[in-house]
Amino acid sequence: MSDNYEVSKQNKVRQISDKAAYDKDTVHGILDAGLIAHVAFVQDGAPVVVPMLYGRDGETIYLHGARKARIIRMLEQTAQASLNVTIVDALVLARSAFNSSMNYRSVTVFGRPTLIEDEPAKIQAMHVITEHTIPGRWDELRAPNNKEIKMTGIIALQIESASAKVSDKAVPEDEEFDYETPVWAGILPMTSTYQTLVDGDRLIEGVEPSEAVKALEGKTL
Amino acid sequence: MSDNYEVSKQNKVRQISDKAAYDKDTVHGILDAGLIAHVAFVQDGAPVVVPMLYGRDGETIYLHGARKARIIRMLEQTAQASLNVTIVDALVLARSAFNSSMNYRSVTVFGRPTLIEDEPAKIQAMHVITEHTIPGRWDELRAPNNKEIKMTGIIALQIESASAKVSDKAVPEDEEFDYETPVWAGILPMTSTYQTLVDGDRLIEGVEPSEAVKALEGKTL
Repeated sequence: MSDNYEVSKQNKVRQISDKAAYDKDTVHGILDAGLIAHVAFVQDGAPVVVPMLYGRDGETIYLHGARKARIIRMLEQTAQASLNVTIVDALVLARSAFNSSMNYRSVTVFGRPTLIEDEPAKIQAMHVITEHTIPGRWDELRAPNNKEIKMTGIIALQIESASAKVSDKAVPEDEEFDYETPVWAGILPMTSTYQTLVDGDRLIEGVEPSEAVKALEGKTL
Repeated sequence: MSDNYEVSKQNKVRQISDKAAYDKDTVHGILDAGLIAHVAFVQDGAPVVVPMLYGRDGETIYLHGARKARIIRMLEQTAQASLNVTIVDALVLARSAFNSSMNYRSVTVFGRPTLIEDEPAKIQAMHVITEHTIPGRWDELRAPNNKEIKMTGIIALQIESASAKVSDKAVPEDEEFDYETPVWAGILPMTSTYQTLVDGDRLIEGVEPSEAVKALEGKTL
């Protein structure tokens, strides 16, 4: 197997294509760093896009929702789905609106969605999604019961094609004549960061957050 | 005009529908607070989703890209587009995987996209997008020149239908029997926040960031 996703009409990055990457390390790295995926499907001929939690295991992305949710029913019925994961890292303030932009890490994936119905496979997918979102949490929690497993719809999306686009400018790039303009230009970093844990109610006395959960405090995507 | 978007098959929130809102104040507030929209379109029968900057003016959402970009050409040709803006506010760590969730503000919009070709209307749309992203910046920058206007593709999406979904749990909600489990539960807030401005290169001596730009430092979505 190649270490790159094949470039096709579907996944080819056409604009600012020097920022494009098709290698699996880059694609998987952004998928693993992100928190939510925007998943698109076609309903009655029209596109619909829905944010979802997810997790990756090799070349499979798992998505979950209520078993009866529209997104799960639609993905079950459809031959092709697409999802995008984007992390914004900065605004790039150039000396013109035209050259102003963003720094970001973005991945678009295309694949065939399948509904997972086998119970052990569903539990394994829940494990993957939970570990992606809150590493270490799965082992702290009781196993899902039969009712919960039944009520959960799991979609496996095999990555058939993918592309990444990464912009990480250290400085804005302006037209030569704009450098003479007395306008400030630079980078405004943005971070998506976990803050301080807040206790829930009815905690049993002496029960504290685990090391795994505490490790998320201050973590940036 | 009503202060609510009409509820139809397309925009009706079916899952956890007590979190749904159709009023324009909520929908517009989330659109105005967000930074990027995930825009979906249909290409050769398959869904594609792309992250884009945007700005709102009344019932119109403006999107921009390179005039020749696939997303602009596709949106120009299509009768229906959908976009979602989601801001993640927290992970909700319950005592079971099933009841664990997120706090978020999310809006999905459906509408008909139109390519804007009239030059003053294009400039006005660029103004709206720039002001949404970096309030106050437009007036600091020179006007776009003819070449830049030609190279920019602007799509106006009239909001025909929209729904918001907001989750803002103060504590996790667990099954009654799970409260006896000695597992920590609570909320892990997440913020997407602008950090400290970084100077670009070749700045003219004495040129500092404006008050408008400095006001973004420390601002959270």
